[in-house]
Amino acid sequence: MGLLTVIDIGIDTHQEPVVYMRSDCEVCLAEGFTASARLGIEYRDQVLIATLNVVDEAVLPHGHIGLSKIAMKRLQAQDGDVIRVTHAPALESLAQVRKKIFGHKLDDTEIGAIVKDISAHRYSDIEIAGFISACAGSRLDIDEIISLTRAMVACGKRLSWPQHEQVFDKHCIGGLPGNRTTPLVVAIVSAGGLVIPKTSSRAITSPAGTADTMETLTNVNLGLADMRRVVELTGACLAWGGAVNLSPADDLLIRIERALDLDGEGQLIASVLSKKIAAGSTHAVIDIPVGASAKVRSRPEAERLASMFVQVSEACGIESRCVLTDGSQPVGQGIGPTEEARDLLAVLQTTPEAPRDLRQRALTLAAQLFDMATAEGYEACLGKATEILDDGRAWRQFQRIVEAQGGFRQLPEARFSEVLSAPLGGEIRSIDNRRLARVAKLAGAPSSRAAGLRLHVRIGSIIERGMPLFTLNANTEGERDYALEYYVGQENIFEVGDPT
Amino acid sequence: MGLLTVIDIGIDTHQEPVVYMRSDCEVCLAEGFTASARLGIEYRDQVLIATLNVVDEAVLPHGHIGLSKIAMKRLQAQDGDVIRVTHAPALESLAQVRKKIFGHKLDDTEIGAIVKDISAHRYSDIEIAGFISACAGSRLDIDEIISLTRAMVACGKRLSWPQHEQVFDKHCIGGLPGNRTTPLVVAIVSAGGLVIPKTSSRAITSPAGTADTMETLTNVNLGLADMRRVVELTGACLAWGGAVNLSPADDLLIRIERALDLDGEGQLIASVLSKKIAAGSTHAVIDIPVGASAKVRSRPEAERLASMFVQVSEACGIESRCVLTDGSQPVGQGIGPTEEARDLLAVLQTTPEAPRDLRQRALTLAAQLFDMATAEGYEACLGKATEILDDGRAWRQFQRIVEAQGGFRQLPEARFSEVLSAPLGGEIRSIDNRRLARVAKLAGAPSSRAAGLRLHVRIGSIIERGMPLFTLNANTEGERDYALEYYVGQENIFEVGDPT
Repeated sequence: MGLLTVIDIGIDTHQEPVVYMRSDCEVCLAEGFTASARLGIEYRDQVLIATLNVVDEAVLPHGHIGLSKIAMKRLQAQDGDVIRVTHAPALESLAQVRKKIFGHKLDDTEIGAIVKDISAHRYSDIEIAGFISACAGSRLDIDEIISLTRAMVACGKRLSWPQHEQVFDKHCIGGLPGNRTTPLVVAIVSAGGLVIPKTSSRAITSPAGTADTMETLTNVNLGLADMRRVVELTGACLAWGGAVNLSPADDLLIRIERALDLDGEGQLIASVLSKKIAAGSTHAVIDIPVGASAKVRSRPEAERLASMFVQVSEACGIESRCVLTDGSQPVGQGIGPTEEARDLLAVLQTTPEAPRDLRQRALTLAAQLFDMATAEGYEACLGKATEILDDGRAWRQFQRIVEAQGGFRQLPEARFSEVLSAPLGGEIRSIDNRRLARVAKLAGAPSSRAAGLRLHVRIGSIIERGMPLFTLNANTEGERDYALEYYVGQENIFEVGDPT
Repeated sequence: MGLLTVIDIGIDTHQEPVVYMRSDCEVCLAEGFTASARLGIEYRDQVLIATLNVVDEAVLPHGHIGLSKIAMKRLQAQDGDVIRVTHAPALESLAQVRKKIFGHKLDDTEIGAIVKDISAHRYSDIEIAGFISACAGSRLDIDEIISLTRAMVACGKRLSWPQHEQVFDKHCIGGLPGNRTTPLVVAIVSAGGLVIPKTSSRAITSPAGTADTMETLTNVNLGLADMRRVVELTGACLAWGGAVNLSPADDLLIRIERALDLDGEGQLIASVLSKKIAAGSTHAVIDIPVGASAKVRSRPEAERLASMFVQVSEACGIESRCVLTDGSQPVGQGIGPTEEARDLLAVLQTTPEAPRDLRQRALTLAAQLFDMATAEGYEACLGKATEILDDGRAWRQFQRIVEAQGGFRQLPEARFSEVLSAPLGGEIRSIDNRRLARVAKLAGAPSSRAAGLRLHVRIGSIIERGMPLFTLNANTEGERDYALEYYVGQENIFEVGDPT
């Protein structure tokens, strides 16, 4: 009973496994499956839970079942294999999700069970969306965030660096376009002798994550062995975290967070710290930009978040230091993977056009890391960081890391560029991070690497009517037009006033 | 740009429109569509928002786009039609969903915009899940529930009964298996002269809704014209609400609520009252069963809910009266569409085996409706209701309604039946509504009409070891085994103690 022959139906359903069965299929009829059922698919020793889509008779031969790409991959099945279809096993942890949706506190065991089931791909996208929405905002208390962090660490791989007593890390919570300090900080502090095996994520809701930007310059898909080799060679790496699967649950949660355009506080802390802990870090600096259109909008809000970061870190055995930084406008001139990479290279090569704000932020964060390592005081450490950057050591170290990861790539050029000019003159009073990030995303960033924009003004710039505000880059006409249409429909992304 | 030829790809994706495009499709490349994109599909004057699934080249010819069943239906497109594919228009109301997820209160306009977009099928399942989770528990305040109720009424059809000054309705909030009083109440009060054009829903999380049960007896898919005809003829009807599309948003919300197995308070009140208002009712009685394993577990909780029902009703111009009833055990002997229908017929025909509890509940609710209409006092009205039932007027009226809706159907027989016996003797102390409902659902109810169970004991029954507790009915072996496996793994669904 319940045996069907597999057909790779050739459909990419992202992370949610979907199976396709004929409505007149004997197994459908015998088991009472209806169109929206969740099913259990057994193959060899594995049981996969999948969503059923019922199909017309013309789509599949009798006795066959179609599997989407992710279902094929999860089961490691081939065309012609025979699988068994059953009712989906009841997931007890869904009762805990409902408990959270109804506003009750979850304990360690309950959160552990949810995260374990999610990381084993047992939840549908709808179920993950329910969990994420229930945890968003400030709905997780500190104990729950600690539980979530631990659960995320528990269900992934965990690196260890037995030959290094102290292992460093840094993270920016995001929300500030162009704030691409990580590669600079990694180059500076590892040139100064700290061990920093950095794994970064791709963008969640922003036009670029560090992994997206670094990928325009070099290979970031390092497996564990490659990562170890690069770190042993250089004391550092700049890898994509997803490739080493440090937090499989987080990757699944992030995809749904992105679809809902959400980035909740508890999830944020757990996501950041679980990856630091899984990466084997002992010390981390967390950059929290504060500004009216940044992710964190006020100083009290930032201090609250910082305090939670420190509490959760302590409970999980890692030392964190939070740095509150200016989040009033984008950092550097580039937004989007390629344009941010250009800014990075300019800072490392100390060219005259290197964005001073990006340079200064990288030095600040590097100094904090040096201070955590040596306790020599922030001022002395800032001097050390500046020297390492200015005398070329950071640039040479960056080149070593890139060479060890596979060498430099040629930066891509965008096929369509458009200069957007000021409709009137005056002084730039404010720049809206969120809406500017949206323009870059509509232009195709980050999945289109060359897409994004280059700013020609900053807060305080005095401009005349018709002077360029920014250059928009896109790889397709559709995306260019879509970004322009959005930009033209918005008011005051750049707020202009009389010069003061 | 962006023109593709439609192919009905023969896949049922439920309510979420999905489109299938080749990864090498020119439109994909030109517009920068990636695997998880939401797209706009334009055909004639309509724009549909759909989720993209990218497919292998073998699945579709060049220049073609596959549409799932619901996408074909919503666009009213045919194979070979040419449609335009664009980026999905930005949905401003999603910002309000996020606002709610983050715990802020929404106003009338904001909730109106969300409900309008949902009812126009502009939300993905993930987005609806986010909204539902954010509103679950007690997260909607009374103003928000009023807004939600009004918004749901505004986006559907609305019936009016100009020739009747008073139009009655009743509703049970559910959670109590077998509590199928509606057809009885409708027959009694309409036999007594009240106008009660009843629309009922299908089950959300229970083994049967009134529409599911009535459908085993007669046609419930009445369009508007049919409904009017039946009501003019008999003063009543027993129709499925979905067929007249009174609250299209509610139907979409309910599907995701079912997938999450959620039934939130605000959504519940809005769902119930919006349908009463849309049906043109002026007076409604709401049955709220209270019991340890019912939907509402305590008297204070029930009183709070009742007070909210009355407040929202007042604000929306309908008079409601809540009746708190015993929710300690299933009502009647049948659970599941067919078994509940058998109980209904027994009560209407006043046979000796008619379940007394079901009969009594129906009389109570009918008396409350008579009292709302005449203000003659509950006792007098209970006498009237009892007389109408006992002298056969209610049964004759029920037959008239069924005949007007298309005549009686033969009740289906289950293919597999299994008697479950008591493992030990004693007195039945409690019966777990939730887990017993789950057994019936696993056996296939409500989608399999004959599936469900028939109870042979009640609280207080004295039983001996080996005496039957209930009979399980299923239409397929798979479902029977699945329900049995669950039942056998549970403890104390029937709690047995020493006779008192």
